[in-house]
Amino acid sequence: MKTLLIICDGMADRSIPALAYKTPLEIAKKPNMDWLAKRGISGIMDTIAPGVAPGSDTAHLALLGYDPYETYTGRGPFEAAGAGIDLRPGDIAFRVNYATVDKNMIITDRRAGRIQDTKPLAEAVQKIKLKGAEFIFRSTVGHRATLVLRGKGLSHEVSDSDPHEEGKKPLKIEPFLQSQEEVVPAYPIIAGGVRKYVMRRRWAAKTAKLLNEFSQKAHEVLKKHPLNLERAKNGLPPANYLLIRGGGIVPHLRPFQERFRIKGACVAAAALVKGVCKLAGMTVVDVPGATGSVNTDLNAKAKAVLQQLKDHDFVLLHVKGSDEAGHDGNIRAKIEIIERVDSIINQFIDAFDFIVITADHTTPVGVKNHTADPVPVVISGPGVRTDDVKTFSERAAAKGGLGRIRGKDLIPIVIDLMGKSTKFGA
Amino acid sequence: MKTLLIICDGMADRSIPALAYKTPLEIAKKPNMDWLAKRGISGIMDTIAPGVAPGSDTAHLALLGYDPYETYTGRGPFEAAGAGIDLRPGDIAFRVNYATVDKNMIITDRRAGRIQDTKPLAEAVQKIKLKGAEFIFRSTVGHRATLVLRGKGLSHEVSDSDPHEEGKKPLKIEPFLQSQEEVVPAYPIIAGGVRKYVMRRRWAAKTAKLLNEFSQKAHEVLKKHPLNLERAKNGLPPANYLLIRGGGIVPHLRPFQERFRIKGACVAAAALVKGVCKLAGMTVVDVPGATGSVNTDLNAKAKAVLQQLKDHDFVLLHVKGSDEAGHDGNIRAKIEIIERVDSIINQFIDAFDFIVITADHTTPVGVKNHTADPVPVVISGPGVRTDDVKTFSERAAAKGGLGRIRGKDLIPIVIDLMGKSTKFGA
Repeated sequence: MKTLLIICDGMADRSIPALAYKTPLEIAKKPNMDWLAKRGISGIMDTIAPGVAPGSDTAHLALLGYDPYETYTGRGPFEAAGAGIDLRPGDIAFRVNYATVDKNMIITDRRAGRIQDTKPLAEAVQKIKLKGAEFIFRSTVGHRATLVLRGKGLSHEVSDSDPHEEGKKPLKIEPFLQSQEEVVPAYPIIAGGVRKYVMRRRWAAKTAKLLNEFSQKAHEVLKKHPLNLERAKNGLPPANYLLIRGGGIVPHLRPFQERFRIKGACVAAAALVKGVCKLAGMTVVDVPGATGSVNTDLNAKAKAVLQQLKDHDFVLLHVKGSDEAGHDGNIRAKIEIIERVDSIINQFIDAFDFIVITADHTTPVGVKNHTADPVPVVISGPGVRTDDVKTFSERAAAKGGLGRIRGKDLIPIVIDLMGKSTKFGA
Repeated sequence: MKTLLIICDGMADRSIPALAYKTPLEIAKKPNMDWLAKRGISGIMDTIAPGVAPGSDTAHLALLGYDPYETYTGRGPFEAAGAGIDLRPGDIAFRVNYATVDKNMIITDRRAGRIQDTKPLAEAVQKIKLKGAEFIFRSTVGHRATLVLRGKGLSHEVSDSDPHEEGKKPLKIEPFLQSQEEVVPAYPIIAGGVRKYVMRRRWAAKTAKLLNEFSQKAHEVLKKHPLNLERAKNGLPPANYLLIRGGGIVPHLRPFQERFRIKGACVAAAALVKGVCKLAGMTVVDVPGATGSVNTDLNAKAKAVLQQLKDHDFVLLHVKGSDEAGHDGNIRAKIEIIERVDSIINQFIDAFDFIVITADHTTPVGVKNHTADPVPVVISGPGVRTDDVKTFSERAAAKGGLGRIRGKDLIPIVIDLMGKSTKFGA
């Protein structure tokens, strides 16, 4: 039994006045999705919980069966895993921007002129050694990079150095603990008692101190780097400062294959999604031409899906463009990407037993951000109790046989349909 | 964005043979509610959980987004807050009845002849001082009063002195702990370990002792009070004993405004509902003419709602009469109050962006008490994914686009529609 899970990021929407109160999904011509709805079972799904607007990282954790409230502390670990860093549970990871500061340490460009090809800079930064932790630093796409701290007595509970504004100085990183009552339990720092809280304060203080030292050393290394001297000569803003944010602790995720007894692969362009799948122990494929944007090469991704099918039972295909269209408030682009995704589905219909289509969250074009509205989901394949739903959309799915489910329940439902569930009890 | 949440207490019902197996909501003429259903999204809601018959206090806690299993230990705190006592988390609060005992300490009237105007009695009782706790005592409506204990090492886990029957003596108050396994976590007594259990036993024993002493002193003060001597002269039963019951510990509720980033107001007559809203940090309005009964002045309440709209984003309008009609088994009164509520809705339609209508629980006229049947809910406002539901009722709502939700999810869903939710993740 083989299953394809298609996740169109942010595809779901709200009633749009300009579409006569319909949604892009209701307007788009999507014969394949509708065909799957006719022979499948539909429902609506709260990826995390009703009223909770999910990020793409927390949503994908939930969609792979992990409770984000237990495993998520920040985006850093998922960015770092998506960037190909081999993480260990307990590592502390951050998102980093190459930025430009002037002589007075004022940030003049948070993205260092959207610099490209920063690998030589990363190599120089990687040479920095500090007592107390191992530092792993890697450039990702454009002005972006990722930083991992490995060692004992470290914490993700530190503030950002990124002020998220130009014309300001980078912020000093400080220990940043939620009050004891508001603690989000996370591996391995399960909230528990004052002693643990004191320990955590100490760890956070140590981590903040290390990161401030690292920032200073990195600034010294970067401002003298030949690549930056060259940029300055050409009138380009030098990438002479690293802005740090989004710290999180790498969770221990019980591997997908161990949990569900099937091998899973992920075909995605978005680093956060790749990171989640990687930390779940899935095979993560790099697809040339997959841009994570509306102009992505969907045929290349389809080919990669069929490639992975050979030695995996489960393939997750993630399409980012629908979310981008939502964030841009572009109704037409959203309809178009839905239609383009639909057009590649027919090559999957004979190849897979089960095809599941859903979104990780709603990104209404009228809101331009993620909202908590439930997403539609359809499961098509042998044995499913088909319902009266004849089309794939938010409203149609709400009448489906699945009712209203949670994101973390989706994979267990599919695994059971695939005949791979284990009985609880006798 | 402004939201009005109308809660008709106990409005939902079951199939009634005398109404050709319809419900009062299905029979009532309610054009405004139906109009909102047509342009809104409907669903059914388990205020607490399926099969759990809610009280008005626990239901309103859940409807404001608080888990009653974490915050509720008894009605006392909500009565006391509703009576205007300025409570602190950790205070122990009780519901009190003025009662009549004879010379042999036998209760001859649990309500002291439904005495009114007990303020002078309360003032005398308030003078009682005991070592070990501060006592705050206040009369509320009729024969009712409320008692709060403030201090260290106190507990709500004590039995009632009210035997709930006349012809008996008041009961001695005893420490009354649930077994360690059955402990309901409550601030600040989070279940934890044998040591804590031993501590709690000690606290409960101390509290019980204090309450017994207080009861004795109050009896002495009351029996000699001029107001009671006067009553005896007039052949009226003296209010010479305080029956104590419904102890609970005041929970720490994270303020509504802090949690949801909007200012909330409550327009209600029922003390319990006012108490819940007050402890949630909402503005609680006293409306002259709002009686908490079927004959309540709904227009005065509507006026108060529109008044609060000016500097609040969220107004909760609570109508008690529908519950009273249910408890009385009065079908006609229930239909009537529904129709009366409907008639005030049109003045809200232009004033608010979102209007939500629901009940806190079902009070079937055939049962005359609260039941666990889910309640109908409709959310009307910009962007909602309208469904095919054309009328507001228990059965129609069950086919709506919201599916079946929980009470504690309602406000987060509404907050998200108002554009005030915060993303969990990146």
